[in-house]
Amino acid sequence: MAKTLDLRLYLVTDEDCLPAGVTLLDAVEQALQAGVTLVQYREKHGDGGKMLAQAKALTELCHRYGVPLVVDDRLDVALAAGADGVHLGQDDLPCAVARELANQVAGPDFILGVSAHTAEEAAQAQADGADYLGCGALFPTRTKEGVKARGIQHLRSIRAAVTIPFVGIGGIKPEHYKAVRAAGADGVAVVTAILAARDIPAAVRKFTSQF
Amino acid sequence: MAKTLDLRLYLVTDEDCLPAGVTLLDAVEQALQAGVTLVQYREKHGDGGKMLAQAKALTELCHRYGVPLVVDDRLDVALAAGADGVHLGQDDLPCAVARELANQVAGPDFILGVSAHTAEEAAQAQADGADYLGCGALFPTRTKEGVKARGIQHLRSIRAAVTIPFVGIGGIKPEHYKAVRAAGADGVAVVTAILAARDIPAAVRKFTSQF
Repeated sequence: MAKTLDLRLYLVTDEDCLPAGVTLLDAVEQALQAGVTLVQYREKHGDGGKMLAQAKALTELCHRYGVPLVVDDRLDVALAAGADGVHLGQDDLPCAVARELANQVAGPDFILGVSAHTAEEAAQAQADGADYLGCGALFPTRTKEGVKARGIQHLRSIRAAVTIPFVGIGGIKPEHYKAVRAAGADGVAVVTAILAARDIPAAVRKFTSQF
Repeated sequence: MAKTLDLRLYLVTDEDCLPAGVTLLDAVEQALQAGVTLVQYREKHGDGGKMLAQAKALTELCHRYGVPLVVDDRLDVALAAGADGVHLGQDDLPCAVARELANQVAGPDFILGVSAHTAEEAAQAQADGADYLGCGALFPTRTKEGVKARGIQHLRSIRAAVTIPFVGIGGIKPEHYKAVRAAGADGVAVVTAILAARDIPAAVRKFTSQF
């Protein structure tokens, strides 16, 4: 897929969030049908073989809905799966290194996302070739315990520091959506508020109705 | 480095094995000075950024001794570090997938090692483009708890199944060396018997004296 980034509602996966009996592929398809605009496959401590199979299946699924799929952390898995990009934390492979490697295999359309917690990290990631940023954590969240919650107004310092698009992340609920956008973010990244919902399409529409 | 494989004494790293106060780089350098012929950087659950820095430092160190360095599991880290190869377990990226990706970045000299527990897995890895195999576990070992110990004679079925070189691995001590070679292996892979030793050069020489 060509690099077209719509960050308005960015779903990040976490199998541990899913209600019993719901598979990851089912949950993501429900979210795609209801209108998420970007999907990240996040699997901490998974084996490469399992991750490759899941990343391939999710890429194929997302492409049926015209939505890009990026893989968290594992650039090798992302490239082998034919995914659209990779998302890198500050402790993962450096962005500039990933860009160089990705260019050799997938070309310049490969999407690079970076987690940036401060304006300095945001500016550095932009300089290193990031296509978008994930900025937070805005609120306390059960998927990243022990991470400092910085609040929505923190996003204004990110907006002032970079020209590339970014999403707010971390414990975001539908009622925060307008304030996050007003603070300069291009959208929100969500895990629990969608995947742990009993009615995933309804949970998605609580965000998309505010686009 | 060109692909020259000397598997006679293959050191696999494990930071948890090191005596207090000994750094990984110091331990590996002592082992290189004493004559190990191949080194694998193994770091389970490490962050990509830390792994990249360690893999780069180890590659540079190994090359000063004319010894190749391969990285366990993380093909992206291996390629970004300029390492000589990657070692893949049965649950990691499939060998054929890794070969295709590595060819695009590093070319055909990039070393692919695969862990094979049975003759069937060994033959499959060879067909998929593996350069060498690690076969075991021969004995119970503290670095891989819960893994079935297969004994030295198991190696004869591997030797009958493949033409590529392989090492025995798993709880191997110097007193097993001749029997492992006699069963058809090209050498041994060792973690604890070298890295946990008070005198690493002496521990290495207990093997190299039997070359």
